[in-house]
Amino acid sequence: MKTLKIIKIGGNIIDNEDALLSFIKDFSTLKGPKVLVHGGGKLATKLANQMNVSVNMVEGRRVTDSDTLDIITMVYAGKINKNIVAQLQAKNCNAIGFSGADGNTIISNRRPIKDIDYGFVGDVKQVNTNTLELLLKNNITPIFCAITHDKNGQLLNTNADTIASELAIGFASIYNTELYYCFEKNGVLEDVSNDNSVIENINTQNYQELINKGIITDGMLPKLNNCFHAIAHNISKVCIGKTDMLFNANTKYTTIIK
Amino acid sequence: MKTLKIIKIGGNIIDNEDALLSFIKDFSTLKGPKVLVHGGGKLATKLANQMNVSVNMVEGRRVTDSDTLDIITMVYAGKINKNIVAQLQAKNCNAIGFSGADGNTIISNRRPIKDIDYGFVGDVKQVNTNTLELLLKNNITPIFCAITHDKNGQLLNTNADTIASELAIGFASIYNTELYYCFEKNGVLEDVSNDNSVIENINTQNYQELINKGIITDGMLPKLNNCFHAIAHNISKVCIGKTDMLFNANTKYTTIIK
Repeated sequence: MKTLKIIKIGGNIIDNEDALLSFIKDFSTLKGPKVLVHGGGKLATKLANQMNVSVNMVEGRRVTDSDTLDIITMVYAGKINKNIVAQLQAKNCNAIGFSGADGNTIISNRRPIKDIDYGFVGDVKQVNTNTLELLLKNNITPIFCAITHDKNGQLLNTNADTIASELAIGFASIYNTELYYCFEKNGVLEDVSNDNSVIENINTQNYQELINKGIITDGMLPKLNNCFHAIAHNISKVCIGKTDMLFNANTKYTTIIK
Repeated sequence: MKTLKIIKIGGNIIDNEDALLSFIKDFSTLKGPKVLVHGGGKLATKLANQMNVSVNMVEGRRVTDSDTLDIITMVYAGKINKNIVAQLQAKNCNAIGFSGADGNTIISNRRPIKDIDYGFVGDVKQVNTNTLELLLKNNITPIFCAITHDKNGQLLNTNADTIASELAIGFASIYNTELYYCFEKNGVLEDVSNDNSVIENINTQNYQELINKGIITDGMLPKLNNCFHAIAHNISKVCIGKTDMLFNANTKYTTIIK
């Protein structure tokens, strides 16, 4: 089986033009099939402010009304995605931008209303890899923004970490799939104030201990849940750290194992 | 040779939600390989106003500074393109949204500065159909917005009529290519106030007469120049009219012939 790398980048790269260009240069040199998934960073909030659309966050998640969905679609699928694609083309990496609607690649259900109505937010239901596989075989790199659709014409704002893990799971029967979550730290840290205190391996056993000890909290929990969800579905390797982990063999980062 | 239909829709459809949904429904039923090209309509101007970005038009063309390019990228490649794709998926038409940067499909040169600096506006230099052909063969329909790139990382605002004709020319050696320009009138009109006065055929001979008589003026000239440019490059059929011309055999429209 060929190895496929699925790489998710977040706000620390998207929001920093130099960091993004540097990452794109490195990413373009990665050998073998690869998929990039990008979040939106702070640009959507910035545009909402410019347009006088109120931003409503509940538990760190954006409540997505119709205006906010438009903003997200414009910023994620438009500005960020197309600029990444154009920069990759400049580095001779043949990329195509995707939302989950394109090629019907990711179908979501609108999140049911319980205590909170998150609006046009989608929970992934189905991933179709056929078209993506066709492109990967032809050395074309899909670049995913964090938008899916419900197959009934509705776009849905969807967590980028989840998109990355669900894509990885979708590919697990075809490729030896590796999933890389890039963020602003070197990995899961023993001491959050010390970037050198990387916990190099987390498995289902010590995961619970790390939660109990209060080392893994709030922000990291959904990320790690995505990781373990992927690991439980035959992803060979899930890694968390800075983008360096992809390009520099001496970098320390966290690997999630069964 | 299989027939490929390249269909360009403009503001009269993009700006009218009902007209767009109705068109998408009809478009999804069209048999055989097809490509859709859409302009931007009035949404970009509306967003520019909301964001207090000044709109500068010279001879009906948008001067595209950096802020305007961002707006165009967000509106054309984001909001309009992804919503069309999602609606097509709902009708079981497997579509993928494209700018010219995606798949390196359309490379442009930034327009040289003569009397006017149009800013980030591109004139098409090269069309690469390989990836599009691969998708068409797999029953996937490319949906193009009016953005290209320079292969050096720069996105460029590009006339949608031109994108349609250049794509048609690019495909002419592989497909029997038909080009359809859909707009708000039934075709080129003998009398602009009478929508029934359609000139059904225009060839290089009567074209000049129609210009001399003042029947073809201003707004129609660039559109017809694109048509004749396509006809001169082995496009089998170029048609101008309402979208009905594609779906209703009794519709009158203008056909451009050599």
